[in-house]
Amino acid sequence: MYDLAGADENRRFSPYCWRIRMALAHKGLEVEYLPWHFVEKDKIKFSGQGKVPVLIDGSNTIADSWEISKYLESTYPERPSLKMDNGEVMFIKFWTETVLHPEILKLLVLDIHDNLSPEDQPYFRETREKRFGLTLEQVVVNRQERLPRIQKILTPLRSTLSKQKYLSGETPGFSDYIVFGAFQWARCMSGFLILNADDIIYKWRDKMLNMHEGLALSAVGYPI
Amino acid sequence: MYDLAGADENRRFSPYCWRIRMALAHKGLEVEYLPWHFVEKDKIKFSGQGKVPVLIDGSNTIADSWEISKYLESTYPERPSLKMDNGEVMFIKFWTETVLHPEILKLLVLDIHDNLSPEDQPYFRETREKRFGLTLEQVVVNRQERLPRIQKILTPLRSTLSKQKYLSGETPGFSDYIVFGAFQWARCMSGFLILNADDIIYKWRDKMLNMHEGLALSAVGYPI
Repeated sequence: MYDLAGADENRRFSPYCWRIRMALAHKGLEVEYLPWHFVEKDKIKFSGQGKVPVLIDGSNTIADSWEISKYLESTYPERPSLKMDNGEVMFIKFWTETVLHPEILKLLVLDIHDNLSPEDQPYFRETREKRFGLTLEQVVVNRQERLPRIQKILTPLRSTLSKQKYLSGETPGFSDYIVFGAFQWARCMSGFLILNADDIIYKWRDKMLNMHEGLALSAVGYPI
Repeated sequence: MYDLAGADENRRFSPYCWRIRMALAHKGLEVEYLPWHFVEKDKIKFSGQGKVPVLIDGSNTIADSWEISKYLESTYPERPSLKMDNGEVMFIKFWTETVLHPEILKLLVLDIHDNLSPEDQPYFRETREKRFGLTLEQVVVNRQERLPRIQKILTPLRSTLSKQKYLSGETPGFSDYIVFGAFQWARCMSGFLILNADDIIYKWRDKMLNMHEGLALSAVGYPI
């Protein structure tokens, strides 16, 4: 699997790649992870598009984390299910991508930039500054004051985790990996504290960090 | 079932009651609906709490829409499933209650007040004005300008419905009834337009209005 890497090639931070790393571990599948940088479009041209994760399984090449997760479910049905049959998982995906990710990005975009390889930094700065209409430095100004806002955004997640062990129910599913990917992205790239230790979301994240033999906990990141 | 009613006793507007009305129709269960008003706490005291819906089924009394839906699933498993086994339905519930409901209320609270029975109006005004720290009239000032905000809030729902027929997948489930309850609450109490006719959410709402022999479409409300 091609996997987004930082200046430190062992820093693998993409929230979309983390979904699949966790999903592969969930299914007990061993995969080789190849570092990839934003500017290396040529390297994954064979996949017909320009983003990671890209999974190669035998003669199959699959891009896009959602497509990969569906591929894993249909190709390895005898292995533990990612629990994607119910339509609400799609809502979790879009809530994460259109509500949670943008809010995290507005807090951490400069930290993310600073952990990228020198080749990726100008590309990242240019595309993100264009998207925000602000410099990266301007985006993160007074980020501490925006913490109550993200706490409020996390309310439905917090309430859900106060009623059940995982977003997916009694056992983790792809929904959990989708949302966890966002927090792991943050943890890999920044020491800025988003979750308080007494938050039930923090406790859930802790379970996610430790599962699959501490796969996410042992990743290069910040000890938050 | 005890069901919240307006000044017109046939105007049944509670989003929580609508979830259950739709769920009962989904299961093909016929139920008598008894009108109830906010101030009639005594009438439902036997249920051990003070809110509707309250369902009486033989010797069983069940309050709270979530508890009722679970009761229906476990008591009538041979009838069409509400598809509540997956944990993500809980997230949909909390997203609806903590994100969507408050935003709709801020647009429609005065219309809701105006459609309540004269006995309920002072209770409703007092409790809601206390909650907002504003008069009802102040809450809805410039509501037209807040429409882009609710459109943005609806993004994850819109994106999901662009990928699949229902929130719950290929067929409707309790998730759909939870979110639909919010729109039906609005439709029963106000002619204020929240959804545009070209919005995929509008098209989904149209399917919801028409299902179960037009149960929701034929309800007393506004033709929006």
